[in-house]
Amino acid sequence: MERRENLPATQDSKTNNHHQQQSESAAIAENQSRTQPAPPPFRFSNRVILKNILEGEDGGVGFVGRRIVVGGWVRTSKEIRKESAAAPEQQLPAGGGMVSRTSPGHKDVSCVEMLQARIPLFRSIIKILAGGSHGAFGGSSGTSPVREKLPPASPESRIQRPPPPSTAYLLVSDGSCAASLQVVVDSSVASPALFLPIGTCLLVEGILRLPQSPGKHRVELSVEKILHIGTVEKDKYPLAAKRVPLENLREASHFRHRSTTVASVMRVRSALTFGSHTFFNNGGFFYVQVPIITNTDAEGFSSKFQATTLLSGKEDAPAKGGDELSMEAVKAAIREKSSLVEELKRSESNREALAAAVQDLRKTDQLAAQLEAKQQKTPKPGFLTTKSSKLNVAEDFFSRQVHLTVSGRLHLESYACALGNVYAFGPRFRADRYANPRYQAAEMWMLEAEIAFSQLEDAMNCAEEHLKFICKWVLEKCTGDMGFISNRIDKTCIDRLQATIACSYERIAYMDAVEILKKVTDKRFETSLVWGIDLTAEHLSYLADEMFKKPVIIYNHPRDIRPFYARLNDDLKTVATFDMVVPKVGKLISGSQNEERIHMVETRIKELGLPIAQYEWYLDLRRHGTVKHSGFALAFDLMVLFVTGLPDVRDAIPFPRTFGKANN
Amino acid sequence: MERRENLPATQDSKTNNHHQQQSESAAIAENQSRTQPAPPPFRFSNRVILKNILEGEDGGVGFVGRRIVVGGWVRTSKEIRKESAAAPEQQLPAGGGMVSRTSPGHKDVSCVEMLQARIPLFRSIIKILAGGSHGAFGGSSGTSPVREKLPPASPESRIQRPPPPSTAYLLVSDGSCAASLQVVVDSSVASPALFLPIGTCLLVEGILRLPQSPGKHRVELSVEKILHIGTVEKDKYPLAAKRVPLENLREASHFRHRSTTVASVMRVRSALTFGSHTFFNNGGFFYVQVPIITNTDAEGFSSKFQATTLLSGKEDAPAKGGDELSMEAVKAAIREKSSLVEELKRSESNREALAAAVQDLRKTDQLAAQLEAKQQKTPKPGFLTTKSSKLNVAEDFFSRQVHLTVSGRLHLESYACALGNVYAFGPRFRADRYANPRYQAAEMWMLEAEIAFSQLEDAMNCAEEHLKFICKWVLEKCTGDMGFISNRIDKTCIDRLQATIACSYERIAYMDAVEILKKVTDKRFETSLVWGIDLTAEHLSYLADEMFKKPVIIYNHPRDIRPFYARLNDDLKTVATFDMVVPKVGKLISGSQNEERIHMVETRIKELGLPIAQYEWYLDLRRHGTVKHSGFALAFDLMVLFVTGLPDVRDAIPFPRTFGKANN
Repeated sequence: MERRENLPATQDSKTNNHHQQQSESAAIAENQSRTQPAPPPFRFSNRVILKNILEGEDGGVGFVGRRIVVGGWVRTSKEIRKESAAAPEQQLPAGGGMVSRTSPGHKDVSCVEMLQARIPLFRSIIKILAGGSHGAFGGSSGTSPVREKLPPASPESRIQRPPPPSTAYLLVSDGSCAASLQVVVDSSVASPALFLPIGTCLLVEGILRLPQSPGKHRVELSVEKILHIGTVEKDKYPLAAKRVPLENLREASHFRHRSTTVASVMRVRSALTFGSHTFFNNGGFFYVQVPIITNTDAEGFSSKFQATTLLSGKEDAPAKGGDELSMEAVKAAIREKSSLVEELKRSESNREALAAAVQDLRKTDQLAAQLEAKQQKTPKPGFLTTKSSKLNVAEDFFSRQVHLTVSGRLHLESYACALGNVYAFGPRFRADRYANPRYQAAEMWMLEAEIAFSQLEDAMNCAEEHLKFICKWVLEKCTGDMGFISNRIDKTCIDRLQATIACSYERIAYMDAVEILKKVTDKRFETSLVWGIDLTAEHLSYLADEMFKKPVIIYNHPRDIRPFYARLNDDLKTVATFDMVVPKVGKLISGSQNEERIHMVETRIKELGLPIAQYEWYLDLRRHGTVKHSGFALAFDLMVLFVTGLPDVRDAIPFPRTFGKANN
Repeated sequence: MERRENLPATQDSKTNNHHQQQSESAAIAENQSRTQPAPPPFRFSNRVILKNILEGEDGGVGFVGRRIVVGGWVRTSKEIRKESAAAPEQQLPAGGGMVSRTSPGHKDVSCVEMLQARIPLFRSIIKILAGGSHGAFGGSSGTSPVREKLPPASPESRIQRPPPPSTAYLLVSDGSCAASLQVVVDSSVASPALFLPIGTCLLVEGILRLPQSPGKHRVELSVEKILHIGTVEKDKYPLAAKRVPLENLREASHFRHRSTTVASVMRVRSALTFGSHTFFNNGGFFYVQVPIITNTDAEGFSSKFQATTLLSGKEDAPAKGGDELSMEAVKAAIREKSSLVEELKRSESNREALAAAVQDLRKTDQLAAQLEAKQQKTPKPGFLTTKSSKLNVAEDFFSRQVHLTVSGRLHLESYACALGNVYAFGPRFRADRYANPRYQAAEMWMLEAEIAFSQLEDAMNCAEEHLKFICKWVLEKCTGDMGFISNRIDKTCIDRLQATIACSYERIAYMDAVEILKKVTDKRFETSLVWGIDLTAEHLSYLADEMFKKPVIIYNHPRDIRPFYARLNDDLKTVATFDMVVPKVGKLISGSQNEERIHMVETRIKELGLPIAQYEWYLDLRRHGTVKHSGFALAFDLMVLFVTGLPDVRDAIPFPRTFGKANN
């Protein structure tokens, strides 16, 4: 209780309810049979996490009879008149949400119509409730935006008869797992109109019981008190429809993770993150936060974002609204999307991906049309006015040009050459206008490792072990989500992970890979194969998806197609690099043994015409106590595609940034 | 062996040695007594991690007699002529490195002189070794930059007599722990001149044995073969001196973690990272990678970096060299440093900090002088030429103005309103020219958490539990490093952490804090206390360091000194926010219950004159399924100061970025 005494004095009245309720439920729990277990309460709110009920072995049956508080958002809803005896189960998909495969069904539609017909009446009821006693709302009316947004009820509404009694069946998810809890609310507890719309937020207290009518649910919650309702503006809510395709959900990047599909993907993403940290920490690696702002270009040929304070001036005519695209951007997008569709048609890749690509292209064409129409009326986009056309670099924050890092490996090397084994995990940036947005965003998270006293093969081993570890991790920790994903996105994903854990990866030299690919009888490759070219996506896909059907490590590439820091092999033609190519995704990991011989690095930097001054600190690592070392970088966002089978990285990144797109 | 067969064909010859050696040592290990344990080999190189030898309970005694390969960098070295019987122990500090407390000592000096006198002779020996048989170098000559950098030996050197036999005693660290291994090399194995300099990298094979002469070391390695030497350009190596103060080490941010002090700090930093991930994952939180590039300003009043591709043009006259500072920058730095010194003198804070500050100020003055001198000769700094003084925003990569995020909390909210409990951990950016660089860098890592269905007190509880968890974690996981840190940086650090774990934190309302501070009899506070002011560092320090002597949580601040999204309390004067203030560091954590009532947020946004369009997506979260939620942000870099007792955050960040400083 001591904590409670520390309760902020001026805290809003709800706080007191909040704890009153807690002790209430506690008291009731007391009186319940000691033998019966209670679901563990969440430490930082007064609710029970649904995962702890629904993902237990018995699906929560062990908790039946318990009074609990749960919170979440409505996925599907249905109101049944007391007269009607229809069991709702068959219309209620478990964890359905926005991507539910079950058709809306006649009943849902009629129920919505019925509600809309009765809106004025509900409004008056709400008004009375909100204004008056807190009974039905457990004192939450203050927090419900409903009251403020409602116009005064028309007098005639007051004299209307109350609606016939009904029972609402809701599937509620709190985002802790793929499954949803069936929540049953009698119209005597609260007016269904308030919480039936998809996306409504509810905090309710009730008794966990066995479902009254048999169905796929093993338990349901019979609600006795509603503690909070966060209503939805039905017509404006982007996820109100039963089925919203992923590419449309992208336009609602602040809401889409309320869909079971995106939520599952993001939970898997989270598990992959912690799995990776666990792997490296158990392996004796230290985590290093390498800088984002840098003046050292890790590659010398990628287009970069500058970080500056020279443009802090306001726009003259700020381009209003959210997501204007310059015409240039849209046209580039159309070019890229069309070629993608072609590519997908050629390689008989999965239908889903092709369908998505086609729809994507169509959408972009429409956008272009709209934009052209729009550009007739709207004033030309905003301009930034600078003092003159010459910007003084000395006046910038760092008194020099800096950019957002494209790779953390160079800085990581400096730590490997002191702490031994290190890794980094953070955002990396590329301002590539013509990148394929399905595989490359402007901001992506990379996992980078660097190992001192090691050589190319050690890095390969580490990359392979890490990949196997996190695949195993996600299968163990995300059973529910992976089950859902294999139902909804990619039936093969679980098999793919199990195969990835079990098999030993193919390792072939670049030279041999070229020979193998030359032998491919059908002349289907667009890029003809000669030693020295960088293998294209179609080449890599052939090796991983068709020939070996497992991860393939291709090593020792021609020096001219690899960064300056890769170690020159004794043949003087190839460098000690490797790419790990995986089925479905293509190149997932790039690694290399980096050149520890200073004169070799200097030579490469000069050959490539890179500004040597900016690499002096990097050369210092070779001047003083140089050591053989190797490492790799894993494109974490692509890893999420590999695990989930999603075809587009924009659906695997919380707030994707691509050419012309940064909307929040 | 299957892996070995996959060995890259064109891999440099060393690879084969590398594995030959592995199997050799393996074979020898075989023949050793079965009962004797072997130190676990590191999986991704052929060496043993020193931590696994030195931080075991018996300090490695259990491994005596084993043949092992170890690698690392020379911390201290000493050569003893065979004639002399002097035991070296007393001159060799364990884990000494650059910040060793033991005085250099006459012998070291003489040894260095002696070596320099014999350089030409050693060169000739090296030349012969390098050119000829690989015996002494175990085939590593190819990887040693020595050969390439040496001029041909002069003829007369050939006829000189070889030097008298000697034994070299080295302390070698591989960065895996604070302790170093004593490595003993006879001059018959390799010429001492190659590896005596501090910072030399060594990979050696030898037998672990009990020290021949008693001392602080429990085991030592008798070297039989040197597998790799990474030499040092003694005169240029910034860490060659025995004692380099931290503020000077900052100039060598790519090397300073080879000092035991910085290395320990960075290992602690790594442990704090993993501890935090563990806390949140165990607690049912999901990790969300919030975007760095955003157009939504989380605060509306902090100066930000723009991310742009509009300035990708080359500089006309690139400011050459590495770290030019605009005069403006230096002057600002001097202002801030002087005021810091004053502040430190006032509050009788620890002498170390004051000394450091004074030295820092002196250095900056010198810099200013040099700069003025330099500016006479050098041409004016580089300019960027843009097409015109009007930059077309539509031509920028995102067709709009974007900046680097100052806080991830707004984006995190969007995920809390779907997944329930989420956290983020990543870099955040502030372009604040007048920030105190001891506490604020331009790029800092923040740990942010957001909890749905929670209120202010829940966030306080979570912040307190998290802080206690990671303090406990670091005490358990970093025993060696914390021991070293308490010796070298802050004797009180371990007690402070134990107290932080044990005590329950003081929680007082802002209002009460003001009353308490008013009562402070001595009128020492510069800022006079009136309700409504933001408490200054000196106020906070008084509460945490002097009055309560433990973490203090101050909550419910006046609305006008807090961001727009903080929830308005029922008194309509204060908002539901809190700061956690800790001894030594000051404000470490800021938290708040965020406003879930849409009209309240809209009002605040308008009152503050923020561009409402950019917050529409944020308001949407209140329009559709709003929920009470709270969260907090922990300044991770300051957490490292709290744990280690370091006075300056620039020594806790791998590559710090501050005004005018971004050198790699």
